Amino acid sequence: METIKATILHNFLLAPIIFALIISQVSSLSSPARPPPENAPVFARWLVKQGFWGVLNTLDSARSPFGNVMSYSDGGTGTPYFYLSTLDPTPHYANVNPRSSFTLSEFELNSCRGKDPQSPLCAKITFSGRLKMLAPNSREGILAQGALLKKHPQFTGFPLQNGTFSVFKLDIRSIFLVNLAAPPRLLTVQEYYLAKP
Amino acid sequence: METIKATILHNFLLAPIIFALIISQVSSLSSPARPPPENAPVFARWLVKQGFWGVLNTLDSARSPFGNVMSYSDGGTGTPYFYLSTLDPTPHYANVNPRSSFTLSEFELNSCRGKDPQSPLCAKITFSGRLKMLAPNSREGILAQGALLKKHPQFTGFPLQNGTFSVFKLDIRSIFLVNLAAPPRLLTVQEYYLAKP
Repeated sequence: METIKATILHNFLLAPIIFALIISQVSSLSSPARPPPENAPVFARWLVKQGFWGVLNTLDSARSPFGNVMSYSDGGTGTPYFYLSTLDPTPHYANVNPRSSFTLSEFELNSCRGKDPQSPLCAKITFSGRLKMLAPNSREGILAQGALLKKHPQFTGFPLQNGTFSVFKLDIRSIFLVNLAAPPRLLTVQEYYLAKP
Repeated sequence: METIKATILHNFLLAPIIFALIISQVSSLSSPARPPPENAPVFARWLVKQGFWGVLNTLDSARSPFGNVMSYSDGGTGTPYFYLSTLDPTPHYANVNPRSSFTLSEFELNSCRGKDPQSPLCAKITFSGRLKMLAPNSREGILAQGALLKKHPQFTGFPLQNGTFSVFKLDIRSIFLVNLAAPPRLLTVQEYYLAKP
């Protein structure tokens, strides 16, 4: 009886430690294996693959910059795909002028521990290019929709009474990456696509 | 002896529950008292006061939209203030053309529990306006610098070998807020500034 009690006591002594260990494991799962920042192409592909949301920027009707929070997925390809609603102004702006940029911060991955979001040690990336709607039955359209729904299962439940959703891609023309020190790293689109995330 | 053991056992039975309660309390402290989303001005002021970082968008040299991750503070005033380095392109772009927008997501506050960042139930806000440098010795410049250093103490330690930092404000001309359902809420700049966060 004494032994059983001691075992139970021992287990409950360990319980908070085990709980803390589980939490830290779950946290580390959310951003596995941060690559060395010196390898800019691999780091950029990792950041985009792990990321979940960012700010998609277009030109509004007065040709002023308009940023809008959007979820995305690259499906492991490096290209950011979006699921945009006609109730949001962004796809309308892109139809008039496709010039766009998409920005995300490593801060959302919980891997910038202790670093301010504006610290050059907490990575940030901006892709500049053209925002284009994908034909729903095209090969890329089907791939993109699958990647979006896999990463953002809530998209299937978004109610739409007076609008529709379409899949868009950002056709990347240039990349701005800060992941170790300012000023930003030189990183070509070709280097980015050749890297493995 | 048996009673002491039972008490210890009882305490350790409660330990994981107490630990979980502490965690939930700490989490709720990070985003206190989310206002009702129906009250758009108060909600917007709350979101901006609690927020920590966002994406600041300007027009690049080709007049395309360029978003850049930036920390900010409003010092409780409603106006987003920034501490921008000359090593970053954003202040240079703003000097040529001050048209800017600043976007942030409630997702960073950890108060969108279970909601996708693109869900209309997880709030997002975009301020459109003009990005202006503040004179360092002006009343607003001193207030803004104090608010920025208070919220982002790491700013004091940012090394700068070939650049300088200046304080900027976003002079707000219009507000885009989604915090309950698409399409966005109507919210005037006057209503926003009259509200108490």
